[in-house]
Amino acid sequence: MKLATLKSDRPDGRLVVVSRDLSRAVDAGAIAASLLDAVERWDDVAASLQALYERLNEQTGTGTADGSFLFDPAACAAPLPRTWQWCDASAFLNHGRLMERAFNTEPIPDFDTIPVMYQGASDDFLGPCDDVPLPDESLGIDFEGEFGVITGTVPMGASAAVALSRVRLLVQVNDWSLRKLGPREMKTGFGFLQCKPSTSFAPVAITPDELGGAWHDGRVKLDLHVQWNGAWFGNPNGAEMNYGFGQLIAHAARTRRLAAGTVIGSGTVSNESRAAGSACIAERRVIEIIDHGEPRTEFMRFGDRVSMAARDSQGEAPFGTIDQRVVRANPQA
Amino acid sequence: MKLATLKSDRPDGRLVVVSRDLSRAVDAGAIAASLLDAVERWDDVAASLQALYERLNEQTGTGTADGSFLFDPAACAAPLPRTWQWCDASAFLNHGRLMERAFNTEPIPDFDTIPVMYQGASDDFLGPCDDVPLPDESLGIDFEGEFGVITGTVPMGASAAVALSRVRLLVQVNDWSLRKLGPREMKTGFGFLQCKPSTSFAPVAITPDELGGAWHDGRVKLDLHVQWNGAWFGNPNGAEMNYGFGQLIAHAARTRRLAAGTVIGSGTVSNESRAAGSACIAERRVIEIIDHGEPRTEFMRFGDRVSMAARDSQGEAPFGTIDQRVVRANPQA
Repeated sequence: MKLATLKSDRPDGRLVVVSRDLSRAVDAGAIAASLLDAVERWDDVAASLQALYERLNEQTGTGTADGSFLFDPAACAAPLPRTWQWCDASAFLNHGRLMERAFNTEPIPDFDTIPVMYQGASDDFLGPCDDVPLPDESLGIDFEGEFGVITGTVPMGASAAVALSRVRLLVQVNDWSLRKLGPREMKTGFGFLQCKPSTSFAPVAITPDELGGAWHDGRVKLDLHVQWNGAWFGNPNGAEMNYGFGQLIAHAARTRRLAAGTVIGSGTVSNESRAAGSACIAERRVIEIIDHGEPRTEFMRFGDRVSMAARDSQGEAPFGTIDQRVVRANPQA
Repeated sequence: MKLATLKSDRPDGRLVVVSRDLSRAVDAGAIAASLLDAVERWDDVAASLQALYERLNEQTGTGTADGSFLFDPAACAAPLPRTWQWCDASAFLNHGRLMERAFNTEPIPDFDTIPVMYQGASDDFLGPCDDVPLPDESLGIDFEGEFGVITGTVPMGASAAVALSRVRLLVQVNDWSLRKLGPREMKTGFGFLQCKPSTSFAPVAITPDELGGAWHDGRVKLDLHVQWNGAWFGNPNGAEMNYGFGQLIAHAARTRRLAAGTVIGSGTVSNESRAAGSACIAERRVIEIIDHGEPRTEFMRFGDRVSMAARDSQGEAPFGTIDQRVVRANPQA
């Protein structure tokens, strides 16, 4: 099934079920107060949500029966506008190795055998069409196209198989980064904080069955199409992820249990083939350094747009599309 | 006023107002559904909670009038059993400098002028008397005694003064650490994840006015008394914090707004005077290395206890006491 959160006067928004073709939606507030509530009570609500989804799909095109309405991605918050936890990995080693060259950092020990993952901020996620307010154009504004999962509770020490069984929903992520702040934060050893502003999400969270064979081995095996100001930037495929989501969740749960509503990200989708392009500017820049001795692509400017949509073999975008504009934040006292 | 959260069948627990002497409590569910709800609607609920607090203090000792009951710290969850965000600094530079020597890491750039802070996990905080389940005794189990604040919403780019004005409550923290996992996670540059299991909190969150002059310049100027298995371990004072909480909150908010319910920690309380002892084992170990060429204190074993209580000049503990035991976690499939 497909779920989304419409903005409302409540901070967790209004849960809706969205038709498979993303054309229509229907309120699901009678089943769960929010998507976070639904994920926390998944076993109690999933069947009811699925039944509503099936009724909605049957009636698509027939009007507003049963209270359905046109689905508007611009009215969406992130599927979870806020949640208890967001951990983001760097599970495409091709990207990680390129970034090591970009930042001239020492190779990460055990990079091939232990995932690297940072604890991110989950208090304020942005919707798919929200403007992205940032304080300073000179900070190296960059997008990062990723896939992610929303989990139920995960016990401490869960195996990768148990962890994978706790995946409730799949999401598509734009993990905004301020590249000029990254190197110092990495050097402190304390990790990313200021260099990671609020993360953005595609409008629709989907159950894994929606992808058929494109969800396999804990990986989303779809091309992630990225456009910057309307121009092609890349379409890397999620199949090359070096750790599956089961392994990533188990990594996060090694020394503590995880609450339901935890979001785990893949890190920037990246393929070895140059023809696939990139899902973030920093990666393209390091390729330019390798090829030409210097970066030729600048970071984003205020007013720039980025769009991202994973697409299946029919060209459909199961998560909908992220389409955002970077803007100058209002200065504060 | 003083607030606590009793464990209940709801994940956010049951909000109670606690008497100044921590002897009695009264349910505050008619005012706010939880402490998180109260912090999110602070301007609407603070006066009602304060009035209830004053009535409770007036009747202390006179029995169960108005539904008050004996306050039992062992029945407490963390004041916020879970919340949207937890960021922990290392604001006592004496500690940070010692830890650099312990881990043999390069000095952090700008350590004296820019706070270091990591994004922690906020999905599963432990109560003051909860057993602390950990998977492996060999991971270097350590406590870290800290102070913290719970904030309202903070706008992006807030000044330290504005940030400080958003402090709603003060808390006392035990930031559990698994020291053997720290160095690798620092080397990745992605920061702490597995080496930071669930964080614990003293039973009572207090408004800053409760401390009188001991809350000054964004610092909690109290001795934090730490005992390990009943023996004195340290009583460093919060006054030596090199960055005040206003500066720490502003640091976290430089590139994004912060949601109400954000918890910001001071990092391990640490004093230059050796007579103050330490608030974590790792710091004592590095002092031993400096003095004797080798560490003489081992990390915690299963069954060990740690207690922590900030005390005022009358010996009272305004936050109550953390008193926890480390236990082996149940293995998972």
